[in-house]
Amino acid sequence: MNIFYTPPSEVYSSSIELTGQEFRHAARVMRYRVGDEIVIVDGAGGRYVGTVAQMTDSSLRAEIKKAEHNPASLPKKVLALGVIKKRDRLEFAVEKAVELGVSEIALFRSRHTVKENVRMDRLESTALAAMKQSLRSWLPKIHLFEGVEDLLGYYADHKLILAHKTEDPAESLASFLNEDKLLMLVGPEGGFSKSEIDGISDRGASTISLGSHRLRSETAAITLLSRLL
Amino acid sequence: MNIFYTPPSEVYSSSIELTGQEFRHAARVMRYRVGDEIVIVDGAGGRYVGTVAQMTDSSLRAEIKKAEHNPASLPKKVLALGVIKKRDRLEFAVEKAVELGVSEIALFRSRHTVKENVRMDRLESTALAAMKQSLRSWLPKIHLFEGVEDLLGYYADHKLILAHKTEDPAESLASFLNEDKLLMLVGPEGGFSKSEIDGISDRGASTISLGSHRLRSETAAITLLSRLL
Repeated sequence: MNIFYTPPSEVYSSSIELTGQEFRHAARVMRYRVGDEIVIVDGAGGRYVGTVAQMTDSSLRAEIKKAEHNPASLPKKVLALGVIKKRDRLEFAVEKAVELGVSEIALFRSRHTVKENVRMDRLESTALAAMKQSLRSWLPKIHLFEGVEDLLGYYADHKLILAHKTEDPAESLASFLNEDKLLMLVGPEGGFSKSEIDGISDRGASTISLGSHRLRSETAAITLLSRLL
Repeated sequence: MNIFYTPPSEVYSSSIELTGQEFRHAARVMRYRVGDEIVIVDGAGGRYVGTVAQMTDSSLRAEIKKAEHNPASLPKKVLALGVIKKRDRLEFAVEKAVELGVSEIALFRSRHTVKENVRMDRLESTALAAMKQSLRSWLPKIHLFEGVEDLLGYYADHKLILAHKTEDPAESLASFLNEDKLLMLVGPEGGFSKSEIDGISDRGASTISLGSHRLRSETAAITLLSRLL
């Protein structure tokens, strides 16, 4: 099944518009024509089944036959991930996080992070493709914070969970499912600095064990999300 | 920490030899010299801490100071994964499976799999790098089966677990941790054929739910393994 994306601003009471790249994919690659049934999501929980009613050179309008609004999943799960140096690994982490149903992605730089340029547009495309691939209707926002302090400040009302390599039987993830908002923190590739760790502890972070083996950042992120599925 | 790999055939009672690419990495890139301490694993549970005693143009010999043998983890966990068409996704699945502690990887072709050429040498290098990265001492073997029937025949004495997209509260993975040998089957990209499904059912496979969303093959594999950590 193919699904297409359009932002909520293009959704009207009885019709829905597709433009830009999504339009081109529908019209030129998938060859949708007037009368065809089409499924469109708005990335904000809306999922629309419609019939193509009109096509121009740059847009497609579908009449909505069926609209459903999926509530955001609770608890809200924000993945906070240090910027990964290798671009393909970072894109992979974003793709898998979206497939596994993350609510939001907060990338951050830390003391020990290399100052890589982050191609946010590419990450957003990756997230969009992953949302469609997994037939989801929520498109997670991706933020980039310049430091751990900024990150913690922005999510001040979120319960903090720190993924950690340890053999101790740490708290079970299930115990957090009653919380409303979770900020799940995966350490950056170079590790946290002393003052960053202090800031995290001051927030009363709970620690989750991901086993006794050294995991790459993106593996730790996926493992954490898999367990909260 | 750097660790190096040498096959068990190069491990002697009091010394251990490093040759080929691992030797070159140690000698030319990491610049190990006589007297340095070196950590070497043999991929079969052996982990050796030694002192470099001799170096030639093509090999390094270390005297073993400390040897430990890590037992294979139980249950034996074999990941059976349909060949993924995109090479980077297949390599990623192998990398993550090794990081997460799989015992063996069984790739298979099925009725609906495209007949892609599989670069087994590349996958083996990926597995080796992932073993070292995660500081493990077991190197999972990678097999390639030409059909589901071959696969099931080879693992005739393994308990079969089929990962499936469903909202039903299927059996919990924890219930399988008493088994000795698990064959964890993730469906191929094109899905199983009717006769393949029949063959799997005849083997009394248990079904594990990975949630209600469509997951890519490699995501399903990683999710399954994460939960068994």
